[in-house]
Amino acid sequence: MISFIAGGKTKVIDLQTIENLLGESLPQEGEGYGVLSEAMRYSVLGGGKRLRAIMLIESFRLFSDDRELEKYTAHPFACAIECIHGYSLVHDDLPAMDNDEYRRGSLTTHKKFGHAMGILTGDALLNYSMEIVAKAGENLAKYKPDYYLDNMHNFISATGVLFRKAGCFGMIGGQVLDVEGFGDDRKIDTEDLSLICELKTARLFQAALCCGAILAGADETAVSLLDEIGYLMGLAFQIRDDILDVTATFSETGKDVSSDEKNNKSTFVSIYGLDFARDKVRSLYEEMTEKLNRLPGDKSEFCKLFEKLYSL
Amino acid sequence: MISFIAGGKTKVIDLQTIENLLGESLPQEGEGYGVLSEAMRYSVLGGGKRLRAIMLIESFRLFSDDRELEKYTAHPFACAIECIHGYSLVHDDLPAMDNDEYRRGSLTTHKKFGHAMGILTGDALLNYSMEIVAKAGENLAKYKPDYYLDNMHNFISATGVLFRKAGCFGMIGGQVLDVEGFGDDRKIDTEDLSLICELKTARLFQAALCCGAILAGADETAVSLLDEIGYLMGLAFQIRDDILDVTATFSETGKDVSSDEKNNKSTFVSIYGLDFARDKVRSLYEEMTEKLNRLPGDKSEFCKLFEKLYSL
Repeated sequence: MISFIAGGKTKVIDLQTIENLLGESLPQEGEGYGVLSEAMRYSVLGGGKRLRAIMLIESFRLFSDDRELEKYTAHPFACAIECIHGYSLVHDDLPAMDNDEYRRGSLTTHKKFGHAMGILTGDALLNYSMEIVAKAGENLAKYKPDYYLDNMHNFISATGVLFRKAGCFGMIGGQVLDVEGFGDDRKIDTEDLSLICELKTARLFQAALCCGAILAGADETAVSLLDEIGYLMGLAFQIRDDILDVTATFSETGKDVSSDEKNNKSTFVSIYGLDFARDKVRSLYEEMTEKLNRLPGDKSEFCKLFEKLYSL
Repeated sequence: MISFIAGGKTKVIDLQTIENLLGESLPQEGEGYGVLSEAMRYSVLGGGKRLRAIMLIESFRLFSDDRELEKYTAHPFACAIECIHGYSLVHDDLPAMDNDEYRRGSLTTHKKFGHAMGILTGDALLNYSMEIVAKAGENLAKYKPDYYLDNMHNFISATGVLFRKAGCFGMIGGQVLDVEGFGDDRKIDTEDLSLICELKTARLFQAALCCGAILAGADETAVSLLDEIGYLMGLAFQIRDDILDVTATFSETGKDVSSDEKNNKSTFVSIYGLDFARDKVRSLYEEMTEKLNRLPGDKSEFCKLFEKLYSL
């Protein structure tokens, strides 16, 4: 039985805090032009587990208990990564991509606001992620000049990591392989599938963990270990998602059941089979736990997160 | 007679230098995943006047003759703004938007690489603009620690300006109004049209001028004046573009002639008439020249630029 963080009774981290941060951070409804703010809020605030935001903040907390620095750096980065994740889903759902009508039980952005608005809302969210980061840098300089001098280097470094992991050599690169690989109904092999998963899913997980740590001043060894953990988490997450895709119902997932099957997509389950896929998740779970234990700080929140996500 | 910078015999600034910077800055062909690098280079390097890059660098030079600082700050920002401009054109050409088949005499990105790749190439370019800026910050910290301490504040500030002007309260906001206004064949009035133009076109012109000046350490009064000049330049540019749309041939513009007419779009020419539109460009030209003369530094390059762009 796989349970969601958001749906579970115990929360790994205060999800409401993250929802509030995001709600305050995004353009307010009625602000700006036309339906754009509404569409941006609809796309990002329509539920979701906020995994990447949680991972980013918890990773920060492994290395720093300075809540003021967290507020000025990790919080905006957490909002930025959720905007990036949100835009990627909006564009992924477009007719020319997966052509999905529902996500998390609601109409996808382009179904609700129209095709052109689907494209523009995604663009606006990606751009907004950079606005959030830039504004955070400005605030750091303005309100926390001491922090600014000490931490600006980390701040810039985390910005680079975030957008490189999300970009043409990261997440978007994975989308391209996905489109190219499935475009002609060619079945892809496990190596292709793993690479696509590494890029499409794991890169943002890695970005979350690495950015949090970098912003807290973690050393290179620790950041590198978190990069590895992010990779394992992303891979396990995708395999679990593929398992869910064939075993869960619409009410549980909120999206078209077996949309992968509908699109005739190769998945870890279609290639490995259900049992092997479950075993793979279990072994990845063990591996990430072993790596986690080599890190400093209180790792109990991460342990809970792993358990919620990967125990089968 | 309206002449292009790129096509003219005299160049306002060394266009080849900017092409080289962009060519080096973008992912190299064969790098990365699938056809993405190729599509990114195709979309950005397929000609264009590089107005925004030129404006950014020339604005920097109004306030600083430090070529080393220019190299580490204004040059990457110039590349970033061309990536932003490039992505906006790629997405603007998509079937759900303007549905254009040609741009600058070549197939539009989605016509050449497919619909999904049109979306992803635009995403990758917008994301890449942030990667360029972040990398520039990292390089500044690494190779120019003295500059870094002195100029990081300006660097962060310029980053905020760039992405706010390009975002939901700027360029993308204009796209949304454009889509909403024209979506139901409703004819819009001059006020709507001016606002759309201000957002869609002028915001990036303002970003170019303001970022260049901020990176060079210009004071707020000067930056504010450049913001006004950018607005006038954008408005005049769009009106001139509308004039061109009804008077030029495919070989001159490289795009579908009268694509606005094809899409039944209201333009400054369709509302004002050709003569009044020309008068408007002339008066905007005078106004921007008057404001320019209030700025410090050698303004001769800007004068040449204005003349090239706006003399009729």
